[in-house]
Amino acid sequence: MTAGEALSVYLQDQATEFLRSLRLQRESTTDAQGAEESLAAARSLRRAARRVGATLHTFRPLLDPEWTEALRPELAWLSGTLAREHAYAARLDRLLGALHRLSTPAPVPAPVRSAQAPRTAGAGAGAAGAPVPRPGQGAKKPTGPLAIGAAKAAALLERQLTLARTRAHSTALQAFGSSRFHAVADSVAVLASEVPLHPAPEADLKPLAAAAEAQLVEAVAALPLLRAGHPYNAEALVHGLAADTAPEAQDAPWLKVRSLLRLHRYAQEVLLGATAPDARLMAAGAALDRHREAAEAAAAAASAARTPRIAPATAYALGVLHADQRHEVEAARFAFQQAWLREAVTAP
Amino acid sequence: MTAGEALSVYLQDQATEFLRSLRLQRESTTDAQGAEESLAAARSLRRAARRVGATLHTFRPLLDPEWTEALRPELAWLSGTLAREHAYAARLDRLLGALHRLSTPAPVPAPVRSAQAPRTAGAGAGAAGAPVPRPGQGAKKPTGPLAIGAAKAAALLERQLTLARTRAHSTALQAFGSSRFHAVADSVAVLASEVPLHPAPEADLKPLAAAAEAQLVEAVAALPLLRAGHPYNAEALVHGLAADTAPEAQDAPWLKVRSLLRLHRYAQEVLLGATAPDARLMAAGAALDRHREAAEAAAAAASAARTPRIAPATAYALGVLHADQRHEVEAARFAFQQAWLREAVTAP
Repeated sequence: MTAGEALSVYLQDQATEFLRSLRLQRESTTDAQGAEESLAAARSLRRAARRVGATLHTFRPLLDPEWTEALRPELAWLSGTLAREHAYAARLDRLLGALHRLSTPAPVPAPVRSAQAPRTAGAGAGAAGAPVPRPGQGAKKPTGPLAIGAAKAAALLERQLTLARTRAHSTALQAFGSSRFHAVADSVAVLASEVPLHPAPEADLKPLAAAAEAQLVEAVAALPLLRAGHPYNAEALVHGLAADTAPEAQDAPWLKVRSLLRLHRYAQEVLLGATAPDARLMAAGAALDRHREAAEAAAAAASAARTPRIAPATAYALGVLHADQRHEVEAARFAFQQAWLREAVTAP
Repeated sequence: MTAGEALSVYLQDQATEFLRSLRLQRESTTDAQGAEESLAAARSLRRAARRVGATLHTFRPLLDPEWTEALRPELAWLSGTLAREHAYAARLDRLLGALHRLSTPAPVPAPVRSAQAPRTAGAGAGAAGAPVPRPGQGAKKPTGPLAIGAAKAAALLERQLTLARTRAHSTALQAFGSSRFHAVADSVAVLASEVPLHPAPEADLKPLAAAAEAQLVEAVAALPLLRAGHPYNAEALVHGLAADTAPEAQDAPWLKVRSLLRLHRYAQEVLLGATAPDARLMAAGAALDRHREAAEAAAAAASAARTPRIAPATAYALGVLHADQRHEVEAARFAFQQAWLREAVTAP
């Protein structure tokens, strides 16, 4: 199989998946089952759009340059528009889950006399991995001022993020009806039938995939990995009370690595097929996804705290929540460092 | 040297140190140098009082029981009274240091393009180990609402903890003038000249020291060490918004281990002399000291947030600060776990 053939197979598969997901989403009913199907279809639509866009980018010397350069920003616009609704929903889930974990009453401990009592008190929680309940679903009603602050913070976040999500949903619906979207869908349909290759005889996939990997490695080398590998370095929260934009500066290189890791992963899929994903790359990618989600959740908590006329107890709960999510950011960096070094050691 | 002789040497040394520190503190002048000397004398007075009390407890079968049982609670009262002023001062330093770290503006990063820029942005901070500045000492004035909240939180904590410290100082001064204190000092003077031993011929130091160690080991076994050794387990902050008393239940077993570790260390001093402290026990003890200080600082931040009529920005900063200090508690547990396991592996 030539480079052009391999690239065509991958792009045609992804384009076909894109068109299939689009049809599924359009045909989905408006009942509960339809909503589930629509969500799943939107997910695989975004998934295919990301892969097509990344592949057009990494292997652009093998493709018709004009056609490619015209489609890429349009795919990015579409992915971004579709991702926003999902992101707000996930952010709200994450924040309500964290607030629930923080405001669940501790199990009543036995007095610390026997050797068994502290074990019960310390290890009985384990709520970190629990499913995400909505406020009011808990077994007990909030009683103290702390719990009331947490409940008010949950209500405030639910209001703000649900509004943002609804707006994102409307924007996505508008996008689906736009001529801009129909043009993208037409281009992807072209891709599904015949990939517009550049007639370059010397073209090869491997050096282009290697270039994508080299960019990733260079970006990772620029990360403060030594510090991230030292647990509890308190780096993610530093400057947290300095200015609203403080975390963005330290998060940017991690977000950049997240994008480059995706490009590398998709290039590997073109080269090796998507059948056997690299477990270490997946772990590193999952850590960076968690980094991004936690950073955005922390920003949403900080933003909610700037709502005028909120009660001090609400603001306090949002402060605790912000720090908790920045703590998650730090944990994600640690997880990435562990996954990445594991790879470097065992790679040939 | 018999058991009684070894015990007498240790207790007489500590009692002599107690009396020397007491004299130094009384003679210290009221100027800046005198205040320094007075602080140092108070520190070694507390240090000696803790050691005398612990030794009377661990080796009580070797000592006159009536005399010992009368002195021990009096020593505990004295240590507690003297420790309080110091604790409030240390707590304020810790909280202001943390607020300073959180509210120092991030260094202006270069745009994330070259490989070097993120490294500068990420690793340039290093403020965790910086000296503790008072609010207003920073190079820049607070500008945004976040920084103003941090400055107000610092002012509130400074007011509350300085008041508490002043009260503790008055209480300590009253204690020094009380007949109760003079009775303790008289008993310690007796100890310095002749230790009232119990005339038991079969008495030995080692089984009593071993019993102290066994109690420590049992209490450590009851700690959730597996969880503590997993970085970023988010355990210390769990239930943090449930009720004011939530952390106490999970902190209690760690505080208990801290007390038992001290008893064990002092028993080792009686047995082996204080010349070569065990580096691993010191590291474990330092981690538990940090645990206690961070837990109390977190509680002080939460308590300050309950002050009526504070601004939401102040409450938000106190929430971030509370979570930051509970994060420190979790870090201290991790450090203890590391120190303790290192010991268990290399011990004979």
